[in-house]
Amino acid sequence: MQDIQDPAPTRGRAGRKAKRAAGAAHAAPAYITRNIPTFELLGEEGLAKLEENAETILQEVGFEVREDEEARRLFREAGADVQGERVRFPRGMLPAIIRATAPSCFTQHARNPARSVKIGHPHTVFSPAYGSPFVQDMEGGRRYGTMADFENFVKLAWASPWLHHSGGTICEPVDIPVNKRHLDMVYAHMRWSDKGFMGSVTAGDRAADSIEMCRILFGADFVDENCVIMGNINMNSPLTCDLTMTAALRAYASANQCAVVVPFILGGAMGPVTTAGAIAQAHAEAMVGVALTQLVRPGAPVVYGNFLSSMSLKSGAPTFGMPEPALACLAVGQLARRLGVPLRCGGGLTASKIPDYQAGQESADSLMPALLCGANFILHGAGWMEGALVMDYEKFMLDAEHLGMMHVFMGGLALDDNALALDAFRENGPGKHFFDCAHTMANYETAFFEPSLSDNTPFEQWEERGSQDARTRAHGAWKKVLAEYEAPPLDEGVDEALREYMARKKGEMPDKWY
Amino acid sequence: MQDIQDPAPTRGRAGRKAKRAAGAAHAAPAYITRNIPTFELLGEEGLAKLEENAETILQEVGFEVREDEEARRLFREAGADVQGERVRFPRGMLPAIIRATAPSCFTQHARNPARSVKIGHPHTVFSPAYGSPFVQDMEGGRRYGTMADFENFVKLAWASPWLHHSGGTICEPVDIPVNKRHLDMVYAHMRWSDKGFMGSVTAGDRAADSIEMCRILFGADFVDENCVIMGNINMNSPLTCDLTMTAALRAYASANQCAVVVPFILGGAMGPVTTAGAIAQAHAEAMVGVALTQLVRPGAPVVYGNFLSSMSLKSGAPTFGMPEPALACLAVGQLARRLGVPLRCGGGLTASKIPDYQAGQESADSLMPALLCGANFILHGAGWMEGALVMDYEKFMLDAEHLGMMHVFMGGLALDDNALALDAFRENGPGKHFFDCAHTMANYETAFFEPSLSDNTPFEQWEERGSQDARTRAHGAWKKVLAEYEAPPLDEGVDEALREYMARKKGEMPDKWY
Repeated sequence: MQDIQDPAPTRGRAGRKAKRAAGAAHAAPAYITRNIPTFELLGEEGLAKLEENAETILQEVGFEVREDEEARRLFREAGADVQGERVRFPRGMLPAIIRATAPSCFTQHARNPARSVKIGHPHTVFSPAYGSPFVQDMEGGRRYGTMADFENFVKLAWASPWLHHSGGTICEPVDIPVNKRHLDMVYAHMRWSDKGFMGSVTAGDRAADSIEMCRILFGADFVDENCVIMGNINMNSPLTCDLTMTAALRAYASANQCAVVVPFILGGAMGPVTTAGAIAQAHAEAMVGVALTQLVRPGAPVVYGNFLSSMSLKSGAPTFGMPEPALACLAVGQLARRLGVPLRCGGGLTASKIPDYQAGQESADSLMPALLCGANFILHGAGWMEGALVMDYEKFMLDAEHLGMMHVFMGGLALDDNALALDAFRENGPGKHFFDCAHTMANYETAFFEPSLSDNTPFEQWEERGSQDARTRAHGAWKKVLAEYEAPPLDEGVDEALREYMARKKGEMPDKWY
Repeated sequence: MQDIQDPAPTRGRAGRKAKRAAGAAHAAPAYITRNIPTFELLGEEGLAKLEENAETILQEVGFEVREDEEARRLFREAGADVQGERVRFPRGMLPAIIRATAPSCFTQHARNPARSVKIGHPHTVFSPAYGSPFVQDMEGGRRYGTMADFENFVKLAWASPWLHHSGGTICEPVDIPVNKRHLDMVYAHMRWSDKGFMGSVTAGDRAADSIEMCRILFGADFVDENCVIMGNINMNSPLTCDLTMTAALRAYASANQCAVVVPFILGGAMGPVTTAGAIAQAHAEAMVGVALTQLVRPGAPVVYGNFLSSMSLKSGAPTFGMPEPALACLAVGQLARRLGVPLRCGGGLTASKIPDYQAGQESADSLMPALLCGANFILHGAGWMEGALVMDYEKFMLDAEHLGMMHVFMGGLALDDNALALDAFRENGPGKHFFDCAHTMANYETAFFEPSLSDNTPFEQWEERGSQDARTRAHGAWKKVLAEYEAPPLDEGVDEALREYMARKKGEMPDKWY
């Protein structure tokens, strides 16, 4: 790795400054190592049935691989039946390809090595929400996202101790031309954060630009041998992929970078309205994409993605945080684990327009199944609002704190002698409170997660402070973080080279706005 | 059972009327039969360690059984070492008593047999919140609860399809004297609902009154042979019970009615600040109470309760929906299952002052672990606000809908041919949406839980309707339910006998206000 600034800034010379800037950020782990079991919703029979159905879909109905002769060639040579754009897969072909070479766990390197993350069992990485055209905050209201918003969210994610990753298209910066904004987005992740990030997937050459910028930041040799960037690539569900998708996937895989392959299915629209059918389809689609990465470059890091949700059948609107996708998520976790590949799930999802009770409930009910099912990469961990249409500043802060709580949950139950506290009982006896016993004194500072946005004060105190709801409290919080933000250091030569690359690429293209 | 009105009113002559009054209430099941596994947080070693520590606490430190010579006599005769009020239990004594006679599952009969519930594996029963001195709604604000509020909540719970039970002290009716309000509360459950309910536990004679009223409603012989009422009895944690608690427990058990035994532990106050220690203590305390019911009357229905939460160690305030009690809940579920007794857990808990993001998140994060851990009776399922200080009208409606979603979750994943939808894939092929395929047409009406308070409409429509948050939407909802409420029929003779009993008992006592 070439000349990355400050190999361990949290402990090195820049440590104190970074700590001051980021609050408790750097006291938290770079990623979660789970210490609780996964939840096994289905037994062998149920799982085999879903796998069987996925294979039947792949064999009988097949997949449309549109506009990409190279992808079809790879599938044909691996044994698929290719008729025009329709590709049918013999039973067992895709799992065999995947199991042969796809890594079960890999490291995504960050420019700050202390923030590199492990993607795969038994680890979990939290990343912000992705892809909203709008942003919202209590003061500015709902509006199109801009590059300034994008940078704000990169900074907020960097400063949060509970987000391990900088994410990708945190919001669409609509003030930058469509064909150039990927450069600014990748640069923003590189410049204003030192956590891992995702690159562009909206065209093969934009994916290539994203990777090229990584070569400048990390060094070309390092990039060829290590994962430094991810691309989040949605399938064109049902059972289809187009060239945008496969070209980006091939760009990442051929550069030994991570493609996250995500069937995007709302039951009743891009898949059947019954959950089991949608799961089998999602499994089939994910396997097609994951296998393609391995045909492009065996051993390339890859993530099996899940984005399966429900619809309101009254209005046709997508719904999130509902019980059907929770069940689906738990089953998909088992299927991905049986394939032996890392899993991405959504968490923090909601259809609500503002961070209210509905948003809190739906976010929690989508995050918990993702954690229980063994997801290794949580996209949409913070900020997601209105079914991905809006990135919300206040919800970002509330969600991030919720992710903090989940660090404790994933850490499981300590059962050592100190945790079991027999001496405290011996000291105290029956009927006496534990407020000031020696065991409490020795443990109280670290015993419980201490939220800063959730309010636990007495009613009178809460009233005195203005009877603020959670959203209002979060409004002050993100403003404070941005005001106190200090950028992590970046080598000036690298920064210059990145800017120079962007300027050159932008100069080669006319602006496109759609 | 004597002359209970209308054995199956939802299907009988009163059916249409009841249905109209209660909306979808009576389409929902009387209780949940779970079709998903429990979550096994700990392995054998961890569970054995917790049980071992509970036994050590019981043996070495022991329990203070205050003011109740009868309870101490029962423990002494069963093999405990009784020194003054301190009772120490030989290792293994309590589990042996419990396993010998405590039922693993029993029916709590409702006066409408169609609303009788099964308490025990694999069933789950949802009940409203319990015990708040205050009530709150958006219009009336936060205020002391009254009998009118109490009746309102009984009616709301009766009308909800997702609450299986009428609960107990839904709120404290502070406009009725302390020593008489139990009569009004029990009567309200009997008169304005036909679901199961809980009686008084604040004194032995109030418990006796509650049971006596059941004898009038159900007939004395039926009551002696069947469970028709529960009493929710908190231990005086740590490791203590007083006469209020044991007298009520003995009253329920001796009448063959259900005592729910609940250690009430906030870690750092009534128990050690470390979670594992608090779990071992809770297990010890629950076993003391559960075993006592079996010594009073072997085979009496009983529920093992869990109420273990955390504290803010900055302010000393109790916190809810936090990760530590979530882990505790999962472990306690395993311990209760190993004892073979039904389990009560909290769900829908929050420290928030209003139904905001925090309330939604904390409620969800306390409900999900309760469901996963195998809880058979969920107290505080709807309405709980501000750490049990407030019963909130709007949150009641939002929580109840959330419980509806959990019906789907607990129902698990259908894996039959219709659910797997192979024909839909064959009909559709790749690339075509499923909106109007035959499979969608045949399934869309029942495919997904359709919330009525969660908003999934497009932003513009939501804005047109006044940009209402979930709380505001819920405000209209409870008013509508109360306006449309029609009481389930009750035999006039029974009603008269109940009123006569109340009048007589009230006449025998001067009012007490504290």
